[in-house]
Amino acid sequence: MKFIILLCVLSASLAHAVDPLVLQTDFGTKDGAVAAMKGVAVGVSPKLAIYDLSHENTPYDIWEGAYRLKQTAMFWPAGTVFVSVIDPGVGTDRKAVVLKTKSGHFFVGPDNGTWTLVAEDLGVDAVRLIDETRHRRRGSEKSYTFHGRDIFAYVGAQLAAGVIAFDDVGPLLEPKVVAIAYERARSEGSRLTGTIPVLDYQYGNVWTNIDDALFQRLAPKVGERFRVTILHEGREVYRGEMPYVRTFGDVAEGEPLLYLNSLMNVSVALNQGDFAKTHRVASGAAWSLKVEKVQP
Amino acid sequence: MKFIILLCVLSASLAHAVDPLVLQTDFGTKDGAVAAMKGVAVGVSPKLAIYDLSHENTPYDIWEGAYRLKQTAMFWPAGTVFVSVIDPGVGTDRKAVVLKTKSGHFFVGPDNGTWTLVAEDLGVDAVRLIDETRHRRRGSEKSYTFHGRDIFAYVGAQLAAGVIAFDDVGPLLEPKVVAIAYERARSEGSRLTGTIPVLDYQYGNVWTNIDDALFQRLAPKVGERFRVTILHEGREVYRGEMPYVRTFGDVAEGEPLLYLNSLMNVSVALNQGDFAKTHRVASGAAWSLKVEKVQP
Amino acid sequence: MKFIILLCVLSASLAHAVDPLVLQTDFGTKDGAVAAMKGVAVGVSPKLAIYDLSHENTPYDIWEGAYRLKQTAMFWPAGTVFVSVIDPGVGTDRKAVVLKTKSGHFFVGPDNGTWTLVAEDLGVDAVRLIDETRHRRRGSEKSYTFHGRDIFAYVGAQLAAGVIAFDDVGPLLEPKVVAIAYERARSEGSRLTGTIPVLDYQYGNVWTNIDDALFQRLAPKVGERFRVTILHEGREVYRGEMPYVRTFGDVAEGEPLLYLNSLMNVSVALNQGDFAKTHRVASGAAWSLKVEKVQP
Repeated sequence: MKFIILLCVLSASLAHAVDPLVLQTDFGTKDGAVAAMKGVAVGVSPKLAIYDLSHENTPYDIWEGAYRLKQTAMFWPAGTVFVSVIDPGVGTDRKAVVLKTKSGHFFVGPDNGTWTLVAEDLGVDAVRLIDETRHRRRGSEKSYTFHGRDIFAYVGAQLAAGVIAFDDVGPLLEPKVVAIAYERARSEGSRLTGTIPVLDYQYGNVWTNIDDALFQRLAPKVGERFRVTILHEGREVYRGEMPYVRTFGDVAEGEPLLYLNSLMNVSVALNQGDFAKTHRVASGAAWSLKVEKVQP
Repeated sequence: MKFIILLCVLSASLAHAVDPLVLQTDFGTKDGAVAAMKGVAVGVSPKLAIYDLSHENTPYDIWEGAYRLKQTAMFWPAGTVFVSVIDPGVGTDRKAVVLKTKSGHFFVGPDNGTWTLVAEDLGVDAVRLIDETRHRRRGSEKSYTFHGRDIFAYVGAQLAAGVIAFDDVGPLLEPKVVAIAYERARSEGSRLTGTIPVLDYQYGNVWTNIDDALFQRLAPKVGERFRVTILHEGREVYRGEMPYVRTFGDVAEGEPLLYLNSLMNVSVALNQGDFAKTHRVASGAAWSLKVEKVQP
Repeated sequence: MKFIILLCVLSASLAHAVDPLVLQTDFGTKDGAVAAMKGVAVGVSPKLAIYDLSHENTPYDIWEGAYRLKQTAMFWPAGTVFVSVIDPGVGTDRKAVVLKTKSGHFFVGPDNGTWTLVAEDLGVDAVRLIDETRHRRRGSEKSYTFHGRDIFAYVGAQLAAGVIAFDDVGPLLEPKVVAIAYERARSEGSRLTGTIPVLDYQYGNVWTNIDDALFQRLAPKVGERFRVTILHEGREVYRGEMPYVRTFGDVAEGEPLLYLNSLMNVSVALNQGDFAKTHRVASGAAWSLKVEKVQP
């Protein structure tokens, strides 16, 4: 009898043995494109749990999509399948792939640079070319412009639902992905220099790619003051001093602060204000930020 | 023993025998109205899988909602229940109905033109009037302005969860729905004329209602050039020539192209540009597009 | 045999014994923060059903978040766990709590005024301080600025999934929450005065906190006319007469109407128009609305 109960519990659990499917696109939420993708996925298996990373990615901005994956993927369990469709080259010879990272996450979409940062952070385990002759929505053969629906959502859903295994996706490629070049953060004596990969746009906080390990070379102590310089194409846009604190409320409203953001990267902000708007700072390859300790 | 295992698997599966519930409204996502609807649906059955088509429909724009259903419904499995609430006439004598299409999809909401295009594409199987005396959220009798929450989400959830069958919804009506009149695409000699039902707003691509079958009358070959004229209330707004290609990347960045969109309708675009904004083109009944082959 | 079948059904059901998890933030949907929260929740249990209230809350606007909870929570089944993160004071000494209301709903987040209205409407059953030493995402010890991800999503998911019980959250506090002061609606002779807590922003309808019970003191009959005065900091911004009707379509397009909104509060609108924009009305503590019957 115990065996039967076990079986029952087991079968109930097995009925659930699907992995999360997470979607990212630049399609917006006013259009029907995302809902078409979800319909295709639900058609593969109604048991799937489908989540949105975001569909508000700036159109064609592959770098932004790459950063959003970096910002989120590591917080999802191993086995999670991410489908990311920021695909200005749809229908050209950019490859349609599935990346498996060493962390056990899967990334389905065009190999156009979107995987730059997760490949780096989570490690490349294997990359497979999607065999489009076997893996595309039935009836989609004459459709050339919406691989998000016809190929990527379909393959992502099959993987997440366990309808196919990673090995069934298609032929193995070299274990590497197309990477967008970007400047690494570095230290120059007592000064650190990094880029501003994205803004924390909702609040106007300025994020950098200077991570905690690099920051520690300055032996920072909470409460100490730092000089921050922000440059656009090498030209100074902002210079100021601010304390390194743990959290926004450690300074008065409207005051600047230096902190480690939710990804443990050096960031600057105004408490309950908008640093980026106030000081006209944006993000991208042309922007850099320098930080050094103020000597007392 | 095999029988018991079978039973277990079966019971586990049965516990899931719900159909997808897909919501469309013009309520926006900043307000709590959509979450109130979902709460009502989850109250009917916590096992429901609820999806969003979009809640960003232009307020009161029934035609846009009709088009979004056309764009998505066919990609969802038979049995899917769509609740669509773009309802400027809430509380008036427009009928609250459930439409069952020949494809086996269900559409719950006001019969105000929202079903125009899915009725046409998927075929009307039957229409039932919702019996509001039996099918409305308990305690909502004094509420007159939010049928989306009190009636449509509630009935849609009951149908999707299998709490009621289609036959239980209410009395059968004539098997037809309120249809918004629009101009059909047509051929005039060597020229096709269609309307611009919506824009692919995220990218500025211009979609028409000229479908693949009609387009084939021009015997188009990939790579051939076509002359496109766009008119607003009969007045020429754009005229240009462009190649018929499979996908955006087949022309240089910024160049115009003619292609079949994800619904296999004739469309025009600028590769990685915004055709609609560049040439001040919008959508709606006042807009038409003519296309003919350029004779070499 | 019947017993075994029962067991199977039971076990299948038990596999589902999770409560809904509903998220509200001011993070926006363009960023990855919400997806990071969901990843943490799914990591707690992949069986969770996660819903969005809204992530478009005006940044730092606690009152708006309080109102959105009032507008939605009562429509969700008892047991539902709401996580609300509008948290300008993250990292300061505002308390991280779980509120259990008498209605059996749970509210997880900073005790900064967000619970003002649900505490009032649903009643405070108990409040517990989250024991952050035991209940935070593993590896998040050095992270100070994203409690939404590291603590609130994690604790909310544990509660919704039944991994911990309410009793395990942490020590009991006094059964009360931080409440934002606001002016109650009141009657002065034949006139009612209320505030405008929020706009029905998508349509521009103006909502008040004058509820049905108070409104009945005027013995209103459908079709009777009322005089409405709207004031900003005591200065008259709008004065007009309009009928009390059940629904928008009871007046001509563009005409004003007084009605009971979806929360059964007195509201004014223009049928298919935007009252707030037309008459430059906004919401907040500085705004009030007076209503009295027009004597025939």
